Amino acid sequence: MVNDIQSASQLDHRADPQRKAGVLGNCPDPRDLLAMSPKLDLDVLDRLHNCSILSAAQFDLPLMQELSKLAACLQLRKFPAGHALDDKIMAAAFFEPSTRTRLSFESAMLHVGGKTMSVADAKTTGVAKGESMRDIGQMFNSYADIVVVRHTQQQALQQLTEYMRVPLINGGNGSDEHPTQALADWYALMKWRPELAFGTLPEQFRLTIGIIGTPGNMRTVKSFLTLALLFHRNINHITIFSEMADPLGTELRALTNASPITIDFSRNLKQSLEYLDVIYMNAIAFLGDGYRFFGDEFSLSSQSQLKTDTVILHPLARGDELGTCLDDTDHNLYFNQADGAVWLRQALLLAIFGRVRNIVPRELIK
Amino acid sequence: MVNDIQSASQLDHRADPQRKAGVLGNCPDPRDLLAMSPKLDLDVLDRLHNCSILSAAQFDLPLMQELSKLAACLQLRKFPAGHALDDKIMAAAFFEPSTRTRLSFESAMLHVGGKTMSVADAKTTGVAKGESMRDIGQMFNSYADIVVVRHTQQQALQQLTEYMRVPLINGGNGSDEHPTQALADWYALMKWRPELAFGTLPEQFRLTIGIIGTPGNMRTVKSFLTLALLFHRNINHITIFSEMADPLGTELRALTNASPITIDFSRNLKQSLEYLDVIYMNAIAFLGDGYRFFGDEFSLSSQSQLKTDTVILHPLARGDELGTCLDDTDHNLYFNQADGAVWLRQALLLAIFGRVRNIVPRELIK
Amino acid sequence: MVNDIQSASQLDHRADPQRKAGVLGNCPDPRDLLAMSPKLDLDVLDRLHNCSILSAAQFDLPLMQELSKLAACLQLRKFPAGHALDDKIMAAAFFEPSTRTRLSFESAMLHVGGKTMSVADAKTTGVAKGESMRDIGQMFNSYADIVVVRHTQQQALQQLTEYMRVPLINGGNGSDEHPTQALADWYALMKWRPELAFGTLPEQFRLTIGIIGTPGNMRTVKSFLTLALLFHRNINHITIFSEMADPLGTELRALTNASPITIDFSRNLKQSLEYLDVIYMNAIAFLGDGYRFFGDEFSLSSQSQLKTDTVILHPLARGDELGTCLDDTDHNLYFNQADGAVWLRQALLLAIFGRVRNIVPRELIK
Repeated sequence: MVNDIQSASQLDHRADPQRKAGVLGNCPDPRDLLAMSPKLDLDVLDRLHNCSILSAAQFDLPLMQELSKLAACLQLRKFPAGHALDDKIMAAAFFEPSTRTRLSFESAMLHVGGKTMSVADAKTTGVAKGESMRDIGQMFNSYADIVVVRHTQQQALQQLTEYMRVPLINGGNGSDEHPTQALADWYALMKWRPELAFGTLPEQFRLTIGIIGTPGNMRTVKSFLTLALLFHRNINHITIFSEMADPLGTELRALTNASPITIDFSRNLKQSLEYLDVIYMNAIAFLGDGYRFFGDEFSLSSQSQLKTDTVILHPLARGDELGTCLDDTDHNLYFNQADGAVWLRQALLLAIFGRVRNIVPRELIK
Repeated sequence: MVNDIQSASQLDHRADPQRKAGVLGNCPDPRDLLAMSPKLDLDVLDRLHNCSILSAAQFDLPLMQELSKLAACLQLRKFPAGHALDDKIMAAAFFEPSTRTRLSFESAMLHVGGKTMSVADAKTTGVAKGESMRDIGQMFNSYADIVVVRHTQQQALQQLTEYMRVPLINGGNGSDEHPTQALADWYALMKWRPELAFGTLPEQFRLTIGIIGTPGNMRTVKSFLTLALLFHRNINHITIFSEMADPLGTELRALTNASPITIDFSRNLKQSLEYLDVIYMNAIAFLGDGYRFFGDEFSLSSQSQLKTDTVILHPLARGDELGTCLDDTDHNLYFNQADGAVWLRQALLLAIFGRVRNIVPRELIK
Repeated sequence: MVNDIQSASQLDHRADPQRKAGVLGNCPDPRDLLAMSPKLDLDVLDRLHNCSILSAAQFDLPLMQELSKLAACLQLRKFPAGHALDDKIMAAAFFEPSTRTRLSFESAMLHVGGKTMSVADAKTTGVAKGESMRDIGQMFNSYADIVVVRHTQQQALQQLTEYMRVPLINGGNGSDEHPTQALADWYALMKWRPELAFGTLPEQFRLTIGIIGTPGNMRTVKSFLTLALLFHRNINHITIFSEMADPLGTELRALTNASPITIDFSRNLKQSLEYLDVIYMNAIAFLGDGYRFFGDEFSLSSQSQLKTDTVILHPLARGDELGTCLDDTDHNLYFNQADGAVWLRQALLLAIFGRVRNIVPRELIK
């Protein structure tokens, strides 16, 4: 590395100034979202007080609106929040390893003054000695004020809550759900098209969404679809791209059948690109007891015939299905999603701890 | 999970309200302990200032009394302690993985304002590159103000202290000792029967304790028994249930021979249940170079013919030897033990750092 | 352990009082360094503001002087710095396990009030799922204000920075560089001989340095040698002890050829001991895809015929090449190096965050 450095004045090796200015790709302004509805309805956020977050199905449109507005306020630093949770401890219990989700939650908690303790790997725990999930849950009551859990097994969270007295947040449980990931997905989309949540788009502007993945057994996809149904006033159509015979499964089919949004299925992504406004993709399917990468035919690159204003969401980490050649384009909303997730999670933590009223100035309260 | 959620108003998925109110099982009131002796003798606690905690044998009855009273004050939030150790850093060095003990110490440190850094797994350390314990000990002097260590090897702690200038707390060393676990065990027992520490029980109310395990080579059992001997005024008898020919070993036998408490040995737990007031059990024996679960004949369940007021202690994690059917009963003091451990460890940290005088109001000082 | 403890009054088990007083071995006084140049030139430190630290080649002599002086001020607690980075978050991303460097950085950050989040092991990350370094880099922008990275691969850091907007510090990248380790090495040497940086030694007192290791493919050795060249006014000669045919490699040879310091090579350490003032050693060579211990013939012990005032530096962890019999002698500057590293890293963090002006009182500013 020595030869790369020419002089002491050339100390700054970071990426070019343009990239430094903001998030790479499409970077919508949180102010646009607040412009639609500038004041926070704290009664709505109070519904999250002391609640565990297990499923995307716990959220309705007003809750999505107010959470996203609070996240936007935090992202814009409209009021100080750096000491709001000074007396609170979050345990991040990741029985399945994950960098992104764990660090995103830890960062959120640290940003609002909270303290963190972590289990980064099940192999470093007494679980290796055969401890049951419900005994572990009981333990967290004594140690932390809130617990974020990721686990390979869907049923682990239910077992964990059996004894718990403090709120729990599902950070991904097997093939079931990943609700805060979906909240962050929709926070990005609401900043991108604020009318989605706060208005009614004229018929011709209502969105068509493509979901690449199998909602029935991919947790981020399931949670994303569940929230999508809340926006039925402004979404006309959802196409699900999957190799599976039954991508929805019984549970989600009941939910989608009850929705005014028309949903269809396809295996031909290429043919559909001309009409998709939003493409949600996910590289990784949890099948049985392990992960595998999703099919090649469902990949996107700068060669793909995307509409000019199509945006792509991806929970990351990515595989070959999402070309890095798209990173510099306005199609890339996935980096913005990751960036916004930290602010959305701060909003969620503040609401669960009932501390929103302590930090929001009166003139911003509805 | 979607189908489980009926409406946004039903957001709270945590266990039933009864469980939320307090710890499951027997939950004695810390106020009963303080009622026996309301004021703290800080001169006694000063004896811990700047001390390493390696063995339960470092403690005498006055120290047990004052530590437990301080823990009770903290648990009852009788005075603010949340910033007492703001300028202190604790390193949790767990060369043998453990969730409970590590998080319990981290939680204790965070509760009193301290900062934490962790080694959760020896495999993530330079130890993998062959580093010696005494060099590691020297290193911690520079990084932390106190170090909590767990290690598979009994002699590791002695090597570690060879160069250390900051206090060290034994968080479990091989088959040797786990002194803070035993402090928490006795904190639970002292809340349950405050007379144990502060009075003299009439002959007929003195306790009979059953210890399932092999004190000679099980660290929690050894530390528990060592502290038990301090309460000889109110303990008549201890029965040790073990498969081993010599459950005590030379060292502990000398100690128990010098005690007025009569100690005997048995392999028949069932027969003894009718006279045991306290049963201490442990699932896991460290034998040679690994752990194994202790014998089946020493298990307890709701089928066991326990006396009405018998309490069970278990350091957890548990195996099959302790039935979950006992969790909801008053026999269960093990959850209370785990819950109190965080407060006892706060008391210990405050005493070691000599910060008790900074937080205890004058009217609570003897 | 029970029998070792005789009474409750004997609670303090730590090493003897002499060792408690300070660092074992040679422990130069930071005041000697400040005596040479008592006031800080903040314009020089400002050059580090918002900079990534990738290579030792980024530093020149004035920067070394001011960083070391700031570190000395912090070590002497000349002004409060405990809240200087209260609003900052550091991510320690150790894709290659390391206790020393990770905890040293975490400790530095905690000492100046900052917050930390850690990846202690690549196996606990999404990297295991195939995530690319540049996506990981992008992610850290959202989570942290600065990232310290260690990686087994030299090129990982360059990939990581591709998207990064926050500063990055190289905590060791494969066989390439470990710049902050070298900064700490030279901080120790500058305290030991303040004239090295701030004066011109008479000819007969100029130093001869022995480097045991292969600068071309050992990261700490490379970074140490790179900084050594900055002190050419006071270093006459460097001998490199290595088994390799070409210990420097092309890149470093160009650098050393341009230096007035004469450099030679030897395989006979024993013969050279009589003229070496400083010996830098390192146990561990990264060769290809793994580590191996360096040759036996390059070991030091109390049997070695060292000059009376020779000092030894070693980045630790050590192997058999450095006898513990030297720990108690004045030759041992390696423990002081490890101790000073925490203060040097605090100075570096404060400079990168542009917070030095906030904490240094006017009378200490040049």
